[in-house]
Amino acid sequence: MRLRRIPGTKEALGHFPDLVIGEPSRYYGSWNQFFGNEHPIHLELGMGKGKFLHLLSQAHPHLNFLGMEFREEMVYKAVERFKGRHDHVGFLWANVDKILEFFAPGEISRIYLNFSDPWPKKRHEKRRLTHGNFLKKYQIILSPGGEIHLKTDNQDFFEFSLNAFADGGFFLKNITFDLHHSNFPGNMMTEYEERYSPVMPIYRCEAKLTTP
Amino acid sequence: MRLRRIPGTKEALGHFPDLVIGEPSRYYGSWNQFFGNEHPIHLELGMGKGKFLHLLSQAHPHLNFLGMEFREEMVYKAVERFKGRHDHVGFLWANVDKILEFFAPGEISRIYLNFSDPWPKKRHEKRRLTHGNFLKKYQIILSPGGEIHLKTDNQDFFEFSLNAFADGGFFLKNITFDLHHSNFPGNMMTEYEERYSPVMPIYRCEAKLTTP
Ligand SMILES: C[S@@+](CC[C@H](N)C(=O)[O-])C[C@H]1O[C@@H](n2cnc3c(N)ncnc32)[C@H](O)[C@@H]1O
Ligand SMILES: C[S@@+](CC[C@H](N)C(=O)[O-])C[C@H]1O[C@@H](n2cnc3c(N)ncnc32)[C@H](O)[C@@H]1O
Repeated sequence: MRLRRIPGTKEALGHFPDLVIGEPSRYYGSWNQFFGNEHPIHLELGMGKGKFLHLLSQAHPHLNFLGMEFREEMVYKAVERFKGRHDHVGFLWANVDKILEFFAPGEISRIYLNFSDPWPKKRHEKRRLTHGNFLKKYQIILSPGGEIHLKTDNQDFFEFSLNAFADGGFFLKNITFDLHHSNFPGNMMTEYEERYSPVMPIYRCEAKLTTP
Repeated sequence: MRLRRIPGTKEALGHFPDLVIGEPSRYYGSWNQFFGNEHPIHLELGMGKGKFLHLLSQAHPHLNFLGMEFREEMVYKAVERFKGRHDHVGFLWANVDKILEFFAPGEISRIYLNFSDPWPKKRHEKRRLTHGNFLKKYQIILSPGGEIHLKTDNQDFFEFSLNAFADGGFFLKNITFDLHHSNFPGNMMTEYEERYSPVMPIYRCEAKLTTP
């Protein structure tokens, strides 16, 4: 998925102000105003080229979808995919690190983590998007009963994530070690999933916020 | 591990009344009297030939250990292993089904499930020792903060068990997909583990009672 830098991408992203939200912190606490409705907001972190969000948003016109991605070439690819059809979709070209600057407590109903970078080295574990430090942030922006849905082909990352969720006080649900041979209904394939599911098992789980 | 029926086993078990507890329901609510101390009681379900309990009980003289097993030949093998050294150990030759007849609410601090029969067929899933029906019973006999420690070489059984624990309201901890390449300290090998860990990964997790 390494893309070469597309010349002019940065500028190109500016041409889709409806899709790529400039200065997303403007909408802190008022994302429903951005969408113009009160529907729940689902957020994908590290959406890559946006295939998953594209499928999901077509299947669910009465939900709002946001995708966050820090590689501009990826955001650009996603934008191309969505051109012309994006009333309930938006992209944040940003680092997940900054999530608390963009979303108020309880503003997000669901977070998707699809094939997040596994950062296999111990000394990089804080970069994993399921590290406890990230989970604390997700816990803040998720609404009561909010969920995180995770898919990955990386067993070590899955193991790490299950423990992180459990230690972080989330309730786990629907754990599967082989999504494509399970009876999970309505799976939407991501880009990575299309590539790896034919050759390796896909792990999946859901982590539910325990409301205090 | 299929043993042929050893003639006279049933009778032989009767010769070790200190180890093999006849009519265990006599001690319902008073197991600490049986042991003559107030130490916590750890219970292994489906202990097989008792290797794990033997190692564990030697390492922890200030805990009490009970093993439950319904195949008499297994109990017999376990008895042989323990002969002469069993002040804080006892065996119940019984079916786990009957557990609520033997233990009062809160009487057990920890339950071990090692390489429980996986019962792979869907129509047999109620026989799996982590089926929700069993978990409800364990929940009753476990003391506040009590834990279930599970090891298995069977990925499907592990997946099933994680979900059963999570759905049953247990908190999961220390999930590992490859115990023998993890940094888990002080692992005690069971009979099955000795046989299978050289050729396949061993899964392990802990499930903690959420005290109401
Ligand atoms: C392995 S790709 C998976 C892409 C897509 N979710 C899929 O399943 O096909 C991981 C993506 O997450 C993005 N990413 C990783 N860390 C991020 C962060 N801290 N903030 C924003 N995006 C991030 C990467 O740029 C990359 O596009
Ligand atoms: C696969 S063996 C594992 C033995 C041992 N725990 C080990 O790890 O080497 C499973 C054991 O559980 C016992 N078992 C299975 N279901 C049981 C039940 N409902 N009640 C008592 N024992 C049971 C079987 O007889 C067998 O000895």
